[in-house]
Amino acid sequence: MVDLNSDLGESFGSWTMGDDEALLSLVSSANVACGFHAGDPQTMLRTVRIAQQRGVSLGAHPAYRDLVGFGRRLLDVSAEELHADVLYQVAALDGVARSAGATLSYVKPHGALYNRIVSDPVQAAAVARAVHELPGNLAILGLPGSAIETACGELGVSFYREAFVDRGYLADGSLVPRTAPGAVLHEVEMIAERAVRMVREGVVQAVDGSLVELRPDSLCVHGDTPGAVAMASAVRTALTAEGVRIERFA
Amino acid sequence: MVDLNSDLGESFGSWTMGDDEALLSLVSSANVACGFHAGDPQTMLRTVRIAQQRGVSLGAHPAYRDLVGFGRRLLDVSAEELHADVLYQVAALDGVARSAGATLSYVKPHGALYNRIVSDPVQAAAVARAVHELPGNLAILGLPGSAIETACGELGVSFYREAFVDRGYLADGSLVPRTAPGAVLHEVEMIAERAVRMVREGVVQAVDGSLVELRPDSLCVHGDTPGAVAMASAVRTALTAEGVRIERFA
Amino acid sequence: MVDLNSDLGESFGSWTMGDDEALLSLVSSANVACGFHAGDPQTMLRTVRIAQQRGVSLGAHPAYRDLVGFGRRLLDVSAEELHADVLYQVAALDGVARSAGATLSYVKPHGALYNRIVSDPVQAAAVARAVHELPGNLAILGLPGSAIETACGELGVSFYREAFVDRGYLADGSLVPRTAPGAVLHEVEMIAERAVRMVREGVVQAVDGSLVELRPDSLCVHGDTPGAVAMASAVRTALTAEGVRIERFA
Amino acid sequence: MVDLNSDLGESFGSWTMGDDEALLSLVSSANVACGFHAGDPQTMLRTVRIAQQRGVSLGAHPAYRDLVGFGRRLLDVSAEELHADVLYQVAALDGVARSAGATLSYVKPHGALYNRIVSDPVQAAAVARAVHELPGNLAILGLPGSAIETACGELGVSFYREAFVDRGYLADGSLVPRTAPGAVLHEVEMIAERAVRMVREGVVQAVDGSLVELRPDSLCVHGDTPGAVAMASAVRTALTAEGVRIERFA
Repeated sequence: MVDLNSDLGESFGSWTMGDDEALLSLVSSANVACGFHAGDPQTMLRTVRIAQQRGVSLGAHPAYRDLVGFGRRLLDVSAEELHADVLYQVAALDGVARSAGATLSYVKPHGALYNRIVSDPVQAAAVARAVHELPGNLAILGLPGSAIETACGELGVSFYREAFVDRGYLADGSLVPRTAPGAVLHEVEMIAERAVRMVREGVVQAVDGSLVELRPDSLCVHGDTPGAVAMASAVRTALTAEGVRIERFA
Repeated sequence: MVDLNSDLGESFGSWTMGDDEALLSLVSSANVACGFHAGDPQTMLRTVRIAQQRGVSLGAHPAYRDLVGFGRRLLDVSAEELHADVLYQVAALDGVARSAGATLSYVKPHGALYNRIVSDPVQAAAVARAVHELPGNLAILGLPGSAIETACGELGVSFYREAFVDRGYLADGSLVPRTAPGAVLHEVEMIAERAVRMVREGVVQAVDGSLVELRPDSLCVHGDTPGAVAMASAVRTALTAEGVRIERFA
Repeated sequence: MVDLNSDLGESFGSWTMGDDEALLSLVSSANVACGFHAGDPQTMLRTVRIAQQRGVSLGAHPAYRDLVGFGRRLLDVSAEELHADVLYQVAALDGVARSAGATLSYVKPHGALYNRIVSDPVQAAAVARAVHELPGNLAILGLPGSAIETACGELGVSFYREAFVDRGYLADGSLVPRTAPGAVLHEVEMIAERAVRMVREGVVQAVDGSLVELRPDSLCVHGDTPGAVAMASAVRTALTAEGVRIERFA
Repeated sequence: MVDLNSDLGESFGSWTMGDDEALLSLVSSANVACGFHAGDPQTMLRTVRIAQQRGVSLGAHPAYRDLVGFGRRLLDVSAEELHADVLYQVAALDGVARSAGATLSYVKPHGALYNRIVSDPVQAAAVARAVHELPGNLAILGLPGSAIETACGELGVSFYREAFVDRGYLADGSLVPRTAPGAVLHEVEMIAERAVRMVREGVVQAVDGSLVELRPDSLCVHGDTPGAVAMASAVRTALTAEGVRIERFA
């Protein structure tokens, strides 16, 4: 059994990003943008409603406040600012969800923030504290072995381990930086095979050939690329063919 | 007994608006900006904490998305956009409040949105519906006889009546437009006398000399002008001297 | 001879709008978004460069400050705010163009602002004044018979007449509102025929069957819809087949 | 002879920052915010007009796009984004200035961007290239010995040297970080004495007691603090008393 998650609700006003309708039929968890890097309130509400109809688990996908950079650029906020920014974004989605009769289950930080709290214990603690202070016993989804996993442990926040089916790994379990070769995989069949191995054996082969232990609770399939639906579909089909059930972790 | 409310938390980043610390010692209800016209997450959190310490009731102060115009310019959003925008803003403040152990009690729309839902039943219904869909049995604070009062009645949302101690009234109970003479009063003593009469007799004298029945649950004292603290203080003193207790309505 | 113009450069950060590359091979004038409703600085620079390579005339496409609403919602700015907002946006694009060795030729307001200055003489005058105060003898492109045409006449700003090949017209020469039936035409062949008649005979048939005199200097083909390229291509082909030369007006 | 510069036009909509009117009577150069960290178009136009009346030189003050952070937080933009962002901001102010009959003379980057291009040659080159590509032979004002000085040298952009009268210096000529003790001086008399020595002797005493050679073309007096006017006034008075003429460098 494994969860499939995807970043969704990343349209903004008249601009569309990805095919949320199609992906919400393939994944079991939706990381919904909260307005700082993408996602206006109407898009959030629409995404929540479809997710709810399909039985997809709802996660908040907070980010640095950077629309034009889509939250992918490091913004050197203070821990206090970050704490308040995460509270604001998660709470906004939580209320939008509750207004539609749905419930928020977890938080997965986005983009540059996601990367920062892999290694920065101060920023990780600020995120974990915000999630901890909100009602609903929200979990956090993140990279195994990260600073955010440690921060969750210290506060008693449930942490779920995520693996990226289309990203290259270094031997230490971190992702190959996007600017380096091998950062992103495109070959659908190979991606599907990696997904199966991640679940079946709990490992992925790093770029240097070594095996990295991941034991993921959830596999991330990206939602914002042209081939996203095909990739998610192939991963789902391959897992199902191997007898792996796709089920929400939270 | 009457409530005193003020628009607070309207700073943004490095920019300060009003003297929230002082006003939070004078009012019984705080309308806290939610980020669309003013109010960043840190400011929201800080305002909520001080309000809670002082026993001040917390209200959300949602607005059109217009930072540079401070929410004072009409933005012709659709009812669907408005519904989602109000959900988002109120939910964000609600979560920020709950993270600090506080509870949101009511919603008071801001600026141009406030004015629009005095007379526009479609927009008023969109606001009332958003408030109704959120948990917490939130009330709405608005102008007596307004479209938003009617919309609240239809949905079973509690509505509280507000009067403006420093604004001129027309004979029909609406406010003198800001562009017309007599729109804003500045004479503190006269304002304090009006406040007392509003509570004692339930009326205000309109610009044409006629008496308008208001029977307010709450008096609004503005927070964003240089003389705001002096005015709020004078109103509070005058009411107390007349034996009127200042107490939160919600 | 007639000009073909299209709204371009309306992507924003990671979000793409329309197929600018294709349209810049079909039109003779590009209305480039300036950042308030769409268009980040990199997108502006990229659009300017392609336009320049293709010999396409450059126009600024200023709007109300409303990213999430794509500048399509009325924002009730004051004339002073509008004047400064137009100065800012046009100047920004002008400098971006000059940095790339290109020259700005005209201004075409966008969306809700475009519609407002059809009938509002105060706002029209604010726009015309801003364009007049900037260097470069910029022209304005707008609806024949509009308030902005009058305002241009009073200030000595060159005004060029625009017609919309895919929009329905009322008998008085104004456009059918987007909320009414017949507002937008989708049948490519019929649109191409209208375009030819607009240029050959200077008229369009209104929704009530009457003929409206347009004598357009430029025909607008929209750039933000899926079928935009096909429509622009059909219009260009039909005009060329009739011996009409496509040439920039400015 | 020396120039006095200050960051001005940093209000935004309803929020006021500093006392621009007073400072524009004391300084000879105004670094005017361009909308990304502060400064809406009306504020820009108003600031330009007052500066022009007082014979104050106009500089553009571009920043990272971060209103809530006032441009003081590092935002890790790419060189291409930075180049376009600087073009956009400087061009916008340039046009606003020209519409008022004024001329832009120089560019001084703001906040976190200012600090980054002290030491980052790639980002410095992106800024210098943008300034170089704009018309008007704009100069750049920055820290002596910085990467931006080098980048200016390579492109033939005029560079002017700036010193900070109220900031602590390290022995290598860089500023004491704001988080360290001694970063900001508050004692007006001491600040005025430092200003005189900076001009008369071309040096400042670093926090370790050593002398740093600065030979500044311009002294920066901050505009956004409560005591800004008093400090600028004291510096001006002290310099004038020593026979130093305050005159725009550009």
